[in-house]
Amino acid sequence: MAGSIYGKNIMISTWGESHGDALGVVVDGFPAGMELNKEDIQKFMDRRKPGKSEVTTSRKEKDEVEILSGVFEGRTTGTPISMLVRNTSQRSADYSNIKDIYRPGHADYSYDEKYGFRDYRGGGRASGRETIGRVAAGALCMKLLSKMGVEVTAFTRSIGDIAIDEKNFDKKNILLTATAMPDLEADKRAVEYIRACQEEKDSLGGVIECRIKGVPAGIGEPVFDKLDAALSKAVMSIGAVKAVEIGDGLLVSARKGSENNDSFENNSIRVTKKTNHSGGILGGISDGDEIILRAHVKPTPSIFRTQHTVDREGKDVTINIHGRHDPVIVPRAVVVVECMCALTILDLMISNMSSRADYITEFYKKLK
Amino acid sequence: MAGSIYGKNIMISTWGESHGDALGVVVDGFPAGMELNKEDIQKFMDRRKPGKSEVTTSRKEKDEVEILSGVFEGRTTGTPISMLVRNTSQRSADYSNIKDIYRPGHADYSYDEKYGFRDYRGGGRASGRETIGRVAAGALCMKLLSKMGVEVTAFTRSIGDIAIDEKNFDKKNILLTATAMPDLEADKRAVEYIRACQEEKDSLGGVIECRIKGVPAGIGEPVFDKLDAALSKAVMSIGAVKAVEIGDGLLVSARKGSENNDSFENNSIRVTKKTNHSGGILGGISDGDEIILRAHVKPTPSIFRTQHTVDREGKDVTINIHGRHDPVIVPRAVVVVECMCALTILDLMISNMSSRADYITEFYKKLK
Amino acid sequence: MAGSIYGKNIMISTWGESHGDALGVVVDGFPAGMELNKEDIQKFMDRRKPGKSEVTTSRKEKDEVEILSGVFEGRTTGTPISMLVRNTSQRSADYSNIKDIYRPGHADYSYDEKYGFRDYRGGGRASGRETIGRVAAGALCMKLLSKMGVEVTAFTRSIGDIAIDEKNFDKKNILLTATAMPDLEADKRAVEYIRACQEEKDSLGGVIECRIKGVPAGIGEPVFDKLDAALSKAVMSIGAVKAVEIGDGLLVSARKGSENNDSFENNSIRVTKKTNHSGGILGGISDGDEIILRAHVKPTPSIFRTQHTVDREGKDVTINIHGRHDPVIVPRAVVVVECMCALTILDLMISNMSSRADYITEFYKKLK
Amino acid sequence: MAGSIYGKNIMISTWGESHGDALGVVVDGFPAGMELNKEDIQKFMDRRKPGKSEVTTSRKEKDEVEILSGVFEGRTTGTPISMLVRNTSQRSADYSNIKDIYRPGHADYSYDEKYGFRDYRGGGRASGRETIGRVAAGALCMKLLSKMGVEVTAFTRSIGDIAIDEKNFDKKNILLTATAMPDLEADKRAVEYIRACQEEKDSLGGVIECRIKGVPAGIGEPVFDKLDAALSKAVMSIGAVKAVEIGDGLLVSARKGSENNDSFENNSIRVTKKTNHSGGILGGISDGDEIILRAHVKPTPSIFRTQHTVDREGKDVTINIHGRHDPVIVPRAVVVVECMCALTILDLMISNMSSRADYITEFYKKLK
Repeated sequence: MAGSIYGKNIMISTWGESHGDALGVVVDGFPAGMELNKEDIQKFMDRRKPGKSEVTTSRKEKDEVEILSGVFEGRTTGTPISMLVRNTSQRSADYSNIKDIYRPGHADYSYDEKYGFRDYRGGGRASGRETIGRVAAGALCMKLLSKMGVEVTAFTRSIGDIAIDEKNFDKKNILLTATAMPDLEADKRAVEYIRACQEEKDSLGGVIECRIKGVPAGIGEPVFDKLDAALSKAVMSIGAVKAVEIGDGLLVSARKGSENNDSFENNSIRVTKKTNHSGGILGGISDGDEIILRAHVKPTPSIFRTQHTVDREGKDVTINIHGRHDPVIVPRAVVVVECMCALTILDLMISNMSSRADYITEFYKKLK
Repeated sequence: MAGSIYGKNIMISTWGESHGDALGVVVDGFPAGMELNKEDIQKFMDRRKPGKSEVTTSRKEKDEVEILSGVFEGRTTGTPISMLVRNTSQRSADYSNIKDIYRPGHADYSYDEKYGFRDYRGGGRASGRETIGRVAAGALCMKLLSKMGVEVTAFTRSIGDIAIDEKNFDKKNILLTATAMPDLEADKRAVEYIRACQEEKDSLGGVIECRIKGVPAGIGEPVFDKLDAALSKAVMSIGAVKAVEIGDGLLVSARKGSENNDSFENNSIRVTKKTNHSGGILGGISDGDEIILRAHVKPTPSIFRTQHTVDREGKDVTINIHGRHDPVIVPRAVVVVECMCALTILDLMISNMSSRADYITEFYKKLK
Repeated sequence: MAGSIYGKNIMISTWGESHGDALGVVVDGFPAGMELNKEDIQKFMDRRKPGKSEVTTSRKEKDEVEILSGVFEGRTTGTPISMLVRNTSQRSADYSNIKDIYRPGHADYSYDEKYGFRDYRGGGRASGRETIGRVAAGALCMKLLSKMGVEVTAFTRSIGDIAIDEKNFDKKNILLTATAMPDLEADKRAVEYIRACQEEKDSLGGVIECRIKGVPAGIGEPVFDKLDAALSKAVMSIGAVKAVEIGDGLLVSARKGSENNDSFENNSIRVTKKTNHSGGILGGISDGDEIILRAHVKPTPSIFRTQHTVDREGKDVTINIHGRHDPVIVPRAVVVVECMCALTILDLMISNMSSRADYITEFYKKLK
Repeated sequence: MAGSIYGKNIMISTWGESHGDALGVVVDGFPAGMELNKEDIQKFMDRRKPGKSEVTTSRKEKDEVEILSGVFEGRTTGTPISMLVRNTSQRSADYSNIKDIYRPGHADYSYDEKYGFRDYRGGGRASGRETIGRVAAGALCMKLLSKMGVEVTAFTRSIGDIAIDEKNFDKKNILLTATAMPDLEADKRAVEYIRACQEEKDSLGGVIECRIKGVPAGIGEPVFDKLDAALSKAVMSIGAVKAVEIGDGLLVSARKGSENNDSFENNSIRVTKKTNHSGGILGGISDGDEIILRAHVKPTPSIFRTQHTVDREGKDVTINIHGRHDPVIVPRAVVVVECMCALTILDLMISNMSSRADYITEFYKKLK
């Protein structure tokens, strides 16, 4: 049942392998008439592309996006937008020694069991390069959301045990630091920590946070398509994410109701909450407050130490991984989390346009 | 876009409000030929029904299930199975005072903003009674999974700060204890803690864990429909869940790769892993190991203390909640987590039947 | 993959067998705030219920609809609307002789091959009673469409070789005649023809036409979800329909372009067409003109003559069908065609609300 | 809600405009392990490519397919297969005069009304070139179906009033004749007729038939996803198709039950039918007989005569269409019908693999 298609109103279909010719995405159902140029997409691609700093992989890819359809005279046409990025710096030879070996922490074994064989070059479809299509599609949504006053901001909250300090938070730093941390001081310490870890031939995990401002109350569908359920799936579908929290997240399980309930209050313009333990979502539907989620990312499984494992015949072997790997996935995954949240929010905001009968009757009255 | 429909191969459509005539579910796509009687469903309904112990709501509902279609001569027919439970103990008057007031921690405000008004009686569709349909449908899947050697077991891991001790784990206790804890000793302490909390007119949160045994390697789809992404959505869609962890979950973000990677080894029958930090899922696809997830549940928002809030006009008011409420949602939500996991796993196991071309060609060769 | 669920924005899930306890439907995603009472649904149920005239089956069913959820204080709440009709006049004994025999023209054999066995009583799920759920759901959509100025009208165009005369067309007759013909004179002849056919223990087919007025230009999605493709599926999914035509339908295959093209012209208010060969659809998208389709319905397969067939062991046998059957399906299927078209049009009109970026931005600007 | 995505188990996402850079398709969910090379796809592309004979458009396109992902070492990997065809012979200048004018019989007006503007070059997305993606994806399915003993064969049944004679039917001629007729004699007359029509600056319609052999009984889902409903949608979604018939199609509406019922009989190997009025489908589910459908195709709307129409301002104007157009769409659409049927049948055959509980339990027993 597929697996590489996401969304309901706006449906994206991603494709491509780490060491294939190209990777890309087709975005179907994106509304017509939005101005779009290549740079709108490229600036998001550049945030995830490899080789930008000393704390990411040294694989150099320009990750230049081509828009092949769905845009005419600088505007989206309402028909599918196909976007593609060519691979230019594959070094498949790096992977010849793992062709028949299952790397610990990787999907080699589970893919082989599922499909009977796999494209082992660079992890094939299980590579982080798979997220290129997500980011290209997410960039489209980010542009439309910004016109709607919705601002989606993801950043690195922590790497290993080095976390940002909220009082140093400066949004513009997210795009400037090597770690995508909004706190320059924490970034500096984190970079040093990553370097030390690299010297030990080891890797690190971390936490990505996403905050979404400007979403009106009422977004999300009851029961199975709750806003938090949809966001959790979106973020948990990113490789290496092992836990997702909404609002105060896991802290709530040890709290009492009197501590955790957010009181409503009247701030003279609209109803607000005194606190935001809920992370902007009540009963699966946005409450008008800032939406907050955190994704816990595991350390890169590719480490340069000798590890124990088995081969395709089940024989015990040792493995030494070569190649160019990120010592920590988090900094480059920040924009992926942002894009997955953007896709999800926009999709649910569109669904919400038909939540009331009078929304529909008035739309068509006006159209006539 | 709906919201009350779940699944791809087996699609369930749930309906009903807390204080309406009835609640139920239609299960479409359930395979033909499985023996089914009412008791198969009722025993699951009984696990979630209210009024069973002193630590749940005192609302008494028999929650007796009626099977209205899709079963003939004791077997499923392959056509939709419609199941229904009548409400018998509504006390709508308990809610007349909250008709125009937004209860803190509840979905009153977000529903009103979405739909323009709401069925305020007992929370309407946002009530925990909504899960009746999930459990009835999940019971069907549990039966089929057990024939396939798949065992899904959810239990209460902790309530407030009282957690089970793994060395006291005895699965049969889950069905015997008031808290659904598998550890009698922890259960005893938790019950006392809940009572003390009730006396303070407060409520508690907790953690539910689910372990799934017997799932072969290869289940789950790449990219967006990863097994962990699907399970996260399933569990996060249950009201009051605010965080989900897979395997070691949030612990992984502070680990190094050398600590977190699970080594593969040959246990002479099949490939296994020395450790199971991954929680049975690698690259979004099952690795043959036990699948483990945890859901963090917030404290019941209905507490009997006076709280500050606003009414529908935005005026500041105080609220005193009456009615019959669970002091902690966790014990009755355990079976809901189990059922949502069962629905998700079975659905993905069906999808996996067409993952290889030879699976399809051999199926039809055999059929002829 | 299910099969009893239909729609994208508004999703209906139908269930029930001819001789089970009940049949019904759950409508998920229907917008909130529309006034709804039982009579809105019942009047459509009455149009399809059996036993109304001498030219339908003599099975007497009141087909009284119960609304179990999704309506509060006389208005839809936006949550699933569950509706149910109890069976009251089953005579399952009529079917004991066909338990192991495949009736010609029926789905007995194909169901047995698919599922391994079947609920043989009255055709089980393959009975025309399956359409109860479609009509209940369609009635909801008809009400909302009428508020939007969209009028869906189906009628009997012909029975056997007796067709209506366009110049006698009077819409109100559709609800008055036994045949659902809008032409009293044709109705009279058709009734006589049906009676004669009944005396010969035979059955008849016919043609149902549906005309949809008030749909603005622009409805329908390009490529696979064209308006005509969606309507064709909707109508072809009704049992016994074997051909569907849009606009001039099959006539177009023998025409020349110069004959078939509809010229556009300016009628001072908006663009119109001089002719309507296209049936209101160009390139799969409505052109603002009346939408026209025709469904060709096969004769009732249950006839009272001795027929040759085989039993479940494959042995050649003769069969004599008993029971209460419509001599022609067409009159009672008219409202089903109408309802399937209503469901389809409304669903696509909702999809269209997000076809342009400015529709979305303006909706949310207004909401704030 | 999209519109360019099709299928449930195997989902295809097509994209591209007539005069854009390229067109293509992403096929998600195609099973792993099938040998695949470019030629498997190219031979189908060549059947639909323009410029092959004197009775098609003179636009010359090589329509050479590139496979960009999802294939490794000559076999499908189970991950998305992305295929692309570059446009090489656009002559957009041919369309500058119709930029602001609505061509009769085309989707210009309905697209403008839907999206606010359109890519007018060559019809943009509404061009017949849109079907390139369908054919590339269909070619994949045809290969897998042939391994399963399923043979899908479409051909031209008639052009204008020139129809094939069943007794001259020779399947191999379909690929040899300019008209895709299986009858050499009819082809000859049809070619002459087309030429005469071209001289009159006019165009022709016709009928495409598709026959599907080797589908076992039991394929198709009850109610909404009936095999005939699914096939109708598939074929009606092809531009210019205005009617679809299953089996004897529209003839059945004028028949009696005694004439139309197909008797079952025992042919010693399996149950068969004496006649096949049903076209291989009973109750929406295959009955094991040959599946037969016919699509009625309208004449090419682009004709070289002066036509009356209006422009975007609603002013009455005359239009003279230039460019390179097929005088009849039918011959090149034959392979599109074949491919849409192949996609639909394979998808429903996969769905059917989980129709019985024992199919599922046995699959997983064997896997272990």
